[in-house]
Amino acid sequence: MQTFPELSKRHIDPTVFPPGVAFMDGQYLPISEAKISVLDNGFLHSDATYDVAHAWKGAFFRLDDHLDRFFAGLEKLHMAIPYSPAQVAEILHNCVALSGLQNAYVEFICTRGTSPTFSRDPRDAVNRFIAFAIPFGSVANPEQMERGLHAAITDIVRISPLSVDPTVKNYHWLDLVRGLYTAYDRGAETAILLDANGNIAEGPGFNVFAVKDGGISTPDFGVLMGITRQSVLEICDALGIRCQTRAVSSDELRTADEVFITSTAGGVMPITRIDHRPVGSGLVGPVTGQITENYWRMHEQDQSRTAIVYPVDAR
Amino acid sequence: MQTFPELSKRHIDPTVFPPGVAFMDGQYLPISEAKISVLDNGFLHSDATYDVAHAWKGAFFRLDDHLDRFFAGLEKLHMAIPYSPAQVAEILHNCVALSGLQNAYVEFICTRGTSPTFSRDPRDAVNRFIAFAIPFGSVANPEQMERGLHAAITDIVRISPLSVDPTVKNYHWLDLVRGLYTAYDRGAETAILLDANGNIAEGPGFNVFAVKDGGISTPDFGVLMGITRQSVLEICDALGIRCQTRAVSSDELRTADEVFITSTAGGVMPITRIDHRPVGSGLVGPVTGQITENYWRMHEQDQSRTAIVYPVDAR
Repeated sequence: MQTFPELSKRHIDPTVFPPGVAFMDGQYLPISEAKISVLDNGFLHSDATYDVAHAWKGAFFRLDDHLDRFFAGLEKLHMAIPYSPAQVAEILHNCVALSGLQNAYVEFICTRGTSPTFSRDPRDAVNRFIAFAIPFGSVANPEQMERGLHAAITDIVRISPLSVDPTVKNYHWLDLVRGLYTAYDRGAETAILLDANGNIAEGPGFNVFAVKDGGISTPDFGVLMGITRQSVLEICDALGIRCQTRAVSSDELRTADEVFITSTAGGVMPITRIDHRPVGSGLVGPVTGQITENYWRMHEQDQSRTAIVYPVDAR
Repeated sequence: MQTFPELSKRHIDPTVFPPGVAFMDGQYLPISEAKISVLDNGFLHSDATYDVAHAWKGAFFRLDDHLDRFFAGLEKLHMAIPYSPAQVAEILHNCVALSGLQNAYVEFICTRGTSPTFSRDPRDAVNRFIAFAIPFGSVANPEQMERGLHAAITDIVRISPLSVDPTVKNYHWLDLVRGLYTAYDRGAETAILLDANGNIAEGPGFNVFAVKDGGISTPDFGVLMGITRQSVLEICDALGIRCQTRAVSSDELRTADEVFITSTAGGVMPITRIDHRPVGSGLVGPVTGQITENYWRMHEQDQSRTAIVYPVDAR
């Protein structure tokens, strides 16, 4: 006679979670509780948009820019949340404050959600807002920040703007993950993908910049309009460094004096080897160093900062 | 003085879930418990593969084909699960048996998971297997099955094979969702996307077929190799209907005698209008009808069936 397994009432999750606080359905929760149903279209169809801001030394950096991009993305995806930008800012503040983290990676998400009638029509779904704060992370670890990353330029093409709008920050990363495995196979640490025209696009979570003869260039087609990328453009402007947003070829990147990448997760990070060959001197270059320094100095300017009040300060 | 919200211990989820049973971490659970962490790369990077089999009248249909495709996808994504195909088959069987559903939509998923050290390197992540059975669903509702669907051919390009391998069943659907909203705007019910060469690719969860002068054609580039698509090819073979897998232009689809689509979610479904113009007679055609009938008849053949034993039968 066939026997059947028992049906458990509640899931017991063996996963180890980092510290952190999340918000969903009006509730502030430990990050271990922040889960979405496997039936949520945000998972089943990767039908979601998000943004990642960061808190540094107890203050958000350029929070309004992240909020603007997020709300623009919602509109482009025909999604709506019951919170204004100011209310989202308050939720993010509370997540960081309750986590106690001075340096935090702060993600906020809207998923398509599920339909109460289980219809397949995305217009019937109830959109879902989730936010969380976890410890600040970086694409490059401290050793890699010091010596520079080793990147591979792969022939994998970043998902085209004809398919998915890259200005809507999204989770479509299988091309980037494929790039990473290709890079690992070649003995590199990260990957750079091409655009449909064979020029440089971007890498897993970062924009790419080439420095040549004191001038800088970065791709402008088929890439995320990164907030850190924007900070670099503003820094160049302030320092009088010529910076062009235009097509950048693989050869241009390989023969650059310096190469660096930008991401909210880590800021400005040097690439000193591409496909086993040194970029320029093979050391972190002076322009990269100057921009990195200015990027972190920007964090102390009042117009970029939104200070966080922690429970311990409010007592 | 600033006040802070309370941190709750457990999430209270207001979502309404359909009936169904899920499996994760060795536990069989109500579908409402089947959730993944927002930190799982299967969500954050849509770094996952899956398959959907169906149970019909108490038996799986072509289960081995779905298992083969799933395990091939795992390998292509450098993922591994601690279950053999036979063990996955047993888990799926138990999900359906415990759900009591005679007709079920049975999805099984592997996500990249999270890294115990919170590293960003996908090689450090612990892959996660999840399966669930919910009531059988269909792309077309009964009324649409009777009169045929109204589709729009959009100029949105399906994510290219140069970016994401379409033979690995994946959740990268933002292009398809964008197609749906474009179709709704034009007064249609579903969308058909193009490939990079401007030919017909596929729609949200389905392959597309054109019938002309008694012969059939279906795209072979940049599309999912659907199991229902495969069933149609075999039915054509058995019935002596010429069926070509090749590039199909938009014009060819618009001027076809009949158009139909295929999906595990619904089987063979007629399209009778494209961009407000009737396809052929504008009624469900005889070839579509014949193939639909043979598709459901296939469900009764021993070589396609894996019978499910339910607890009530085993008593």
